[in-house]
Amino acid sequence: MQQARDKQATLVKPKGALGRLETLSIRLAGMTGKTTYFPVNRATLVFAGDHGVMTHNVSTVPSSVTAYMVKQFLSGSAAVNSLSRQMGARVIVVDVGVDHKFKPRPRSLMPPIGVETHKPTFVQKKIANGTNDFTQTTAMSAEQAERAMQVGMDVVRDEQKRGLEIVFLGEMGIGNTSSASAIIAALTGMGVETVTGHGSGIDDDTYIRKVDLIKQALALHSPADENPLMKIGGYEIGAIAGAILQATSQRIPVVLDGLICTAGALIAHQINPDVVNYCIAGHQSAEVGHRIALQFLGLDPLLNLDLRLGEGTGALLAFPLIESAMRTLNEMGTLDVG
Amino acid sequence: MQQARDKQATLVKPKGALGRLETLSIRLAGMTGKTTYFPVNRATLVFAGDHGVMTHNVSTVPSSVTAYMVKQFLSGSAAVNSLSRQMGARVIVVDVGVDHKFKPRPRSLMPPIGVETHKPTFVQKKIANGTNDFTQTTAMSAEQAERAMQVGMDVVRDEQKRGLEIVFLGEMGIGNTSSASAIIAALTGMGVETVTGHGSGIDDDTYIRKVDLIKQALALHSPADENPLMKIGGYEIGAIAGAILQATSQRIPVVLDGLICTAGALIAHQINPDVVNYCIAGHQSAEVGHRIALQFLGLDPLLNLDLRLGEGTGALLAFPLIESAMRTLNEMGTLDVG
Repeated sequence: MQQARDKQATLVKPKGALGRLETLSIRLAGMTGKTTYFPVNRATLVFAGDHGVMTHNVSTVPSSVTAYMVKQFLSGSAAVNSLSRQMGARVIVVDVGVDHKFKPRPRSLMPPIGVETHKPTFVQKKIANGTNDFTQTTAMSAEQAERAMQVGMDVVRDEQKRGLEIVFLGEMGIGNTSSASAIIAALTGMGVETVTGHGSGIDDDTYIRKVDLIKQALALHSPADENPLMKIGGYEIGAIAGAILQATSQRIPVVLDGLICTAGALIAHQINPDVVNYCIAGHQSAEVGHRIALQFLGLDPLLNLDLRLGEGTGALLAFPLIESAMRTLNEMGTLDVG
Repeated sequence: MQQARDKQATLVKPKGALGRLETLSIRLAGMTGKTTYFPVNRATLVFAGDHGVMTHNVSTVPSSVTAYMVKQFLSGSAAVNSLSRQMGARVIVVDVGVDHKFKPRPRSLMPPIGVETHKPTFVQKKIANGTNDFTQTTAMSAEQAERAMQVGMDVVRDEQKRGLEIVFLGEMGIGNTSSASAIIAALTGMGVETVTGHGSGIDDDTYIRKVDLIKQALALHSPADENPLMKIGGYEIGAIAGAILQATSQRIPVVLDGLICTAGALIAHQINPDVVNYCIAGHQSAEVGHRIALQFLGLDPLLNLDLRLGEGTGALLAFPLIESAMRTLNEMGTLDVG
């Protein structure tokens, strides 16, 4: 970090004139131990799972849309595919807990390291057909929570063998903003209304029910900040936490997407606070709880585009800024006038 | 625009979930008349000029840095070069009024349309060796103001012959935040303190002098909103206004950079308010007057990264979002479930 900071001070520009690109370049140097970090081997990990709280219809769409969207990801026609193509990232879709029986799909042969592929990979590691309704019982067992995190770690380990240098995290799970808001309330200590938003675009009546359900869950599981993944979590959220723990332990930068990813980051942070030093907040989503979770983690989002899609889109969109930060640090000339 | 709006509503995502990418795609369709706008022929136009107000030392560096930076642009080692390479945009550096005698430099042979070149082009159209001190007299004559705008129009016309599809605007001119702030105050009606910032990083004493000088100029030239370019402008600012008028008249989208570019946009807007419909605000700079100028024009900046460099950097950084907006509009599948 000091080398990057010193170098920034010599470049042909007024000190600090590149603003957040400069601080980003310094952070990336700290994460990777390199002032010349140009990640060509990029992967988008999209973890999917269903949610028992959907028995209360807290979304504009039914749970079956989770499986439907997984198929879209695999066919290459979702937003995450389009943006992954733009950013040269391969897409790995992981079923951690979708309430649907997918056909077995063997892993496609990977292209040589660093070469992008447009054919998504499907990793089938289903733990259960969705979580339990967390207003009635724990979302999953302690053992299932462990396994969910392990799925995320294993997927990152597999991608490391393929040369992984940067991770974009994404997710899919109808109903998962309820789980994410519950986790954010439990781990930041903020009120449920403060961290709960309108998710996919629910109306005010549904919103009031959603807030009540989260409050019920937090009361039932108090103290909810002890094993929140088991009590109020989601399989995809656990896998995200595991992926963050594994990637950051290997100094592989992780770009976070929105509310759900950041709830996963809170869980990883509870286990090892050091993970945030290797995380980049891709964007500030339209979900109110997202800002609070990022502030709690001390992360400053790069973009603010009113996105509320998930899938990893807000992580991918930030990638060109990472490239710009490292390009300017490395390509610019040095100042030789006062 | 309606076609793009209708198409957005059919894509596999909740309505509006891609936030500002959706509105950007709709605007781009309106600008270009195409829902499939993928600009491969891209140019960064960097207009440079010096400023008579620098006799009062209103910057951290002397006027000679303008010429120094022009040479950096031509050698390819400035931030604008690095980011133009990343974005696949050729760099055209235009001397409209730099206080330095550059060696003649013939235009390099251009590569085929759509292929990026890393060798910047130098267009020598010097009108004068910098403006007059606008606290004493008009910055330039009425005829020089006309010629400055003509330079911008001519440069865009030349690039149109090479197939230009998108313009990133940039500038270089030590002292030009004083001129830009004066123009913004004159054309938006806001107070001088409100629109004046610390430019390259001046101290508080210099800031107070800068504000006083701008106030003097606005008093001397009242009404300063009648031919502001002549009275309080800069050659590079006039060329920017001309470039905007020409490009937008041809439905070529223009991406604005920071304070100075936006002052040029205000001048173009005074001549033809329709130009803003073809302008994209690349970013919100650290300069206070920039937000006010953008609000006056009704433009919402895509990025906010505390940049205060100019050169076109904040315009270039926004390009990937333009590509993302059009890719998602065109590549995503359509929804066939409720």
